[in-house]
Amino acid sequence: MAEMNRVWRLRKRPVGVIGDDVLSFDQEPVPEPADGQFLMRMNYLSLDPTNRIWMSDMDQYMPPVAIGEAMRGVVCGTVVTSKHPDFAPGDLVSGLGSWAEYQIGTPGMLNKMGPLGGVAVADAFGLFAVVGPTAYFGLLDLGAPQAGETVVVSAAAGAVGSIVGQIAKIHGCRAVGLAGSDAKCSWIVEDLGFDAAINYKTENVASALKKACPNGIDIYFDNVGGDILDTCFKQMNLFGRIPTCGLISQYNATGAIPGPTNYPMILMQRLKVQGFIVLDYAARYPEAITALGGWMQQGKLKFRVDMYDGLEHAVATLRKLYTGENQGKLMVKVS
Amino acid sequence: MAEMNRVWRLRKRPVGVIGDDVLSFDQEPVPEPADGQFLMRMNYLSLDPTNRIWMSDMDQYMPPVAIGEAMRGVVCGTVVTSKHPDFAPGDLVSGLGSWAEYQIGTPGMLNKMGPLGGVAVADAFGLFAVVGPTAYFGLLDLGAPQAGETVVVSAAAGAVGSIVGQIAKIHGCRAVGLAGSDAKCSWIVEDLGFDAAINYKTENVASALKKACPNGIDIYFDNVGGDILDTCFKQMNLFGRIPTCGLISQYNATGAIPGPTNYPMILMQRLKVQGFIVLDYAARYPEAITALGGWMQQGKLKFRVDMYDGLEHAVATLRKLYTGENQGKLMVKVS
Repeated sequence: MAEMNRVWRLRKRPVGVIGDDVLSFDQEPVPEPADGQFLMRMNYLSLDPTNRIWMSDMDQYMPPVAIGEAMRGVVCGTVVTSKHPDFAPGDLVSGLGSWAEYQIGTPGMLNKMGPLGGVAVADAFGLFAVVGPTAYFGLLDLGAPQAGETVVVSAAAGAVGSIVGQIAKIHGCRAVGLAGSDAKCSWIVEDLGFDAAINYKTENVASALKKACPNGIDIYFDNVGGDILDTCFKQMNLFGRIPTCGLISQYNATGAIPGPTNYPMILMQRLKVQGFIVLDYAARYPEAITALGGWMQQGKLKFRVDMYDGLEHAVATLRKLYTGENQGKLMVKVS
Repeated sequence: MAEMNRVWRLRKRPVGVIGDDVLSFDQEPVPEPADGQFLMRMNYLSLDPTNRIWMSDMDQYMPPVAIGEAMRGVVCGTVVTSKHPDFAPGDLVSGLGSWAEYQIGTPGMLNKMGPLGGVAVADAFGLFAVVGPTAYFGLLDLGAPQAGETVVVSAAAGAVGSIVGQIAKIHGCRAVGLAGSDAKCSWIVEDLGFDAAINYKTENVASALKKACPNGIDIYFDNVGGDILDTCFKQMNLFGRIPTCGLISQYNATGAIPGPTNYPMILMQRLKVQGFIVLDYAARYPEAITALGGWMQQGKLKFRVDMYDGLEHAVATLRKLYTGENQGKLMVKVS
């Protein structure tokens, strides 16, 4: 009997927290690659805040996943069979795929991973596929940090946020992180070298920020939107920058979301608020990977994978992103 | 008997519409210039949306006018007596001064107007002092328009907006203006050459914008904030720009102002929202004045002064800015 595939398919749009009936976990035949394609078996599935966007039909930067379609995700796997001359069985590939153990790959969507230089596959995939370049281009290209400036980042114990703060330190900035537990706050200060951390669940964010940023905020790297964004607006310095990477506080909202009441600070302080998606920087990935890999080898950059086992637990694991349960790069090991 | 001065002084912070008791119009002795200063008699007082900001104690880009202080304004006048070697009686000067018939000038705050090249003083003052450079740098520096793109501007029959649309046309863009009356809409299309105009008071802005911008909005030059901003957010193209010049719909607000609910479009469409104040570009004024003057001489740029008579009517005249009554560059003739 042929081996069966396991596939998560989107069945309805989520309302609020992602319910158990939003996706179904189906057994299906393993697909056959056509000419120019290959078959990949997934090793790791990256779970990212943007997954929730793709499930919904909110305005977004790509078409949402259609109802009935396999859920979209960032994946890492091994080529099993190939009908493409550039891919051979055993090749490690990563890119934009689906939540399926076996899936068809085409170049452009799934690409060969470069030499790993001794880095574990999960680390290389976790850092280089999305998270590292996101932090790198968002902070350096849009934020343009200068030594001595103050960088605040939200979701600072998250995959992107934890890298942002460390790159800020590497560039001579003061790094201040917002996170949702004392353990996370302690981790980013003690282990990652942030200058200060604020537990936004237990502290008054406005006064804690004033204390942690005595010279104001030059760059607020926004991963969350909502109240924290609004509070940061009030403490931005003249000509401050707000790279807008995510608005995770809003993805599970069920009604209209109030906008930031301190929006006029954009005018008064001549701020630059700019959204970005790391895919826009695809052509410049090698630059980011070289820099990130170098900092890792020099011990200047630490990266934590938060790994869970089993594709069948993908939905339950993904929910941890929105409840603040996870710490580091969230992913599941598939095979 | 010595001639008396006439001075508007701020007496209280405005709440809502600027009331008659917010400023007092006082008779005072004419001040005496000290060494390094000169005495100027005002010819024209520019009335600008930002005047309302300076009266209030909202977060702003300069210190607010203090209670009891002469109201701040952009002024044009003639030197009467001088104790500064570079200024002589009869010199025309303009810059940041106060709402006073006679006032002390120092270089830096009040500077000599360059050769007018046949342009009337009021036109040169109105176009070159604030309005023209604001439109020029906001649209070209922050908006970076490309030929074929669509530029939407609010308060399009206002002093800045009317220039923005014309510069957009000069750069090969489609120019769409929002204004508050059919007469204004007709003026910007028929006389100024905008491609389309929308009367935001009588039309459904969202559907009118869709019709006027069949290829979406690449640049929204924001003068007003509020609902129009929120509606534009939804129709911005990928990598669109929102130079933020003013938020006049919000200056008279008495309570907390809701932020734009479509703020997440910044992320989804990778928008750049950037605030600016024309004073930031002081060093580059000559570039703007040269370009604007050239376009005027070539007949590519039309400019309308909306002139009222008498410093004593300054407050009543200023109110027209917030009620949408005026059209073109609002100012009062003083002497």
